[in-house]
Amino acid sequence: MLAKTPPPPYYAVIFTSLKTEGNTSYAEMAQRMEELAKQQPSYSGIESAREELGITVSYWKDVESIRNWKMNLEHLQAQKTGREDWYSHYKVRVCLVERDYGFEK
Amino acid sequence: MLAKTPPPPYYAVIFTSLKTEGNTSYAEMAQRMEELAKQQPSYSGIESAREELGITVSYWKDVESIRNWKMNLEHLQAQKTGREDWYSHYKVRVCLVERDYGFEK
Repeated sequence: MLAKTPPPPYYAVIFTSLKTEGNTSYAEMAQRMEELAKQQPSYSGIESAREELGITVSYWKDVESIRNWKMNLEHLQAQKTGREDWYSHYKVRVCLVERDYGFEK
Repeated sequence: MLAKTPPPPYYAVIFTSLKTEGNTSYAEMAQRMEELAKQQPSYSGIESAREELGITVSYWKDVESIRNWKMNLEHLQAQKTGREDWYSHYKVRVCLVERDYGFEK
């Protein structure tokens, strides 16, 4: 499903990643992090897809909440395991969504 | 592959979509639009993945080039066919990338 985001301006965090062969506990972690993100203040939705490349975009009402989410203890542990085991390469981009528009049949 | 983007600030266009059952010429169009985007001024990379949801993020050095790309004649035709045939729902978000960081093994 597409995220139901508020009217701009709001924030997007684009997380792009390539995985290693290792998959130990990856699916559980991904699901847990999504559940945990949803409980954070100012969280406004998430969109995710993976083929060779994985792209997860999370949406937030303010940038402070993004900083707090990055520093969440359980999330910090997931980031550490991500670097050690799951990901060969990733990039995080913190963005201000200035405008948006869409289409629905 | 992850896009090799310049140091921030730069722009990201997040295009999220749900497809219809119709697939006529979709793959050809997607490939052609990617080739054409790469020829535009200030284009800085593209990242794409599709499961149920499709996410394509294109990166740009300035916002004027995003406007020009949206108005490109061949791209306008693809947008029209997209609404008529390919997509049941989509959203476009134009974003200023304020900071980024990454990890590579």
